Amino acid sequence: MRFDVLTLFPEMIESHFAFSIMKRAVESGIIKVNTINPRDFTLDKHRKVDDTPYGGGAGMVLMPQPYVDAYESIEKIENSITVMLSPQGEPLCEKVVKELADFEQIICLCGHYEGFDERIREIIKPKEISIGDFVLTGGELPALCLIDAVSRKLEGTLGKIESAQDDSFSDGLLEYPQYTKPREYRGFKVPEVLLNGNHKEINEFRQQQRILRTKLKRPDLLK
Amino acid sequence: MRFDVLTLFPEMIESHFAFSIMKRAVESGIIKVNTINPRDFTLDKHRKVDDTPYGGGAGMVLMPQPYVDAYESIEKIENSITVMLSPQGEPLCEKVVKELADFEQIICLCGHYEGFDERIREIIKPKEISIGDFVLTGGELPALCLIDAVSRKLEGTLGKIESAQDDSFSDGLLEYPQYTKPREYRGFKVPEVLLNGNHKEINEFRQQQRILRTKLKRPDLLK
Repeated sequence: MRFDVLTLFPEMIESHFAFSIMKRAVESGIIKVNTINPRDFTLDKHRKVDDTPYGGGAGMVLMPQPYVDAYESIEKIENSITVMLSPQGEPLCEKVVKELADFEQIICLCGHYEGFDERIREIIKPKEISIGDFVLTGGELPALCLIDAVSRKLEGTLGKIESAQDDSFSDGLLEYPQYTKPREYRGFKVPEVLLNGNHKEINEFRQQQRILRTKLKRPDLLK
Repeated sequence: MRFDVLTLFPEMIESHFAFSIMKRAVESGIIKVNTINPRDFTLDKHRKVDDTPYGGGAGMVLMPQPYVDAYESIEKIENSITVMLSPQGEPLCEKVVKELADFEQIICLCGHYEGFDERIREIIKPKEISIGDFVLTGGELPALCLIDAVSRKLEGTLGKIESAQDDSFSDGLLEYPQYTKPREYRGFKVPEVLLNGNHKEINEFRQQQRILRTKLKRPDLLK
């Protein structure tokens, strides 16, 4: 899977892949992450990428020319999708993550400060995706969330040791409670059922816990 | 505002504050970001922080002792809240962001790989927050989203130039379309109304656009 990220802050993206599972995914060739900076496509000597909004108002707006030119410089491979990270997009969820994981290239468009000139949307026609109903200083963190969530689904990213099969939302329910050593810690004990080796009982306990937790914490998911 | 982040990957957090608005917020003293690594609180020579789950199953589980000890090492100031980033938490939204911005200290608990031993929840009793119904390799990106969203609300983080007042969700609606120079780009023109200097008409146009977009893209927000 190839990710191309348009951003004014390429290091914000690149630094994330120096650690942990995402580092390994890059090193083993499962994912490739490329950044493109619209500032490199400006035509004036000040390398200006934004300007004040027509009609007034606070904030700066990303100008169409550097952004569209930067976008068009990206080599598109077959089975490619372009995603704009924006609070106005479709909310990201596990279903969308799985759909995205079937592409071979995901181009991520990140804004910063106030947002995109509307003509960037009109010309590029990206799929808009939001990671939630809150506002951030830029699209870089949402892009990293998307890349991380999608990469987890690709074969080989997670070893046996970090399996995705029992994740929250894997079948519409939250995850069951997990316990590891020691058996007792500060008076809190591991539930007896997890220690008896009866897999049928363990599975029943866990499934009950998943339903119970979902009812308690996220009743909206059961609808 | 002080953020203390418990994480096995402190650099993942720290690297984010080397850029842009968040860098400026740190430099100007509006926020302070501190990291604590549970691995520094292990008691064995292998510095082990996780182990296999009781009851079987793939994945590793964070052991309670290093995590709880790391948590208890943090100096708590008055008006402090502890947040666990977890897919099981309350979904983050602008309302929650504003509530969090009223605290003076936010302690963020990040998991990695499979998750927390349940007793970490039972002992620390954090507020659990989710950034969305998708699964990531760790709580670090969600913690960064939370810190970024909360920091934006603090006085001085955004200059006049990046005002938050017209953001998406600021009054339950998506943002209006933005335009900047040039007036015409590849045949796409800036709407005439934004050029005529009539602020009443501009405001009406923008408000109409906000309602229209919200209806089109996120009808659920209008309910």
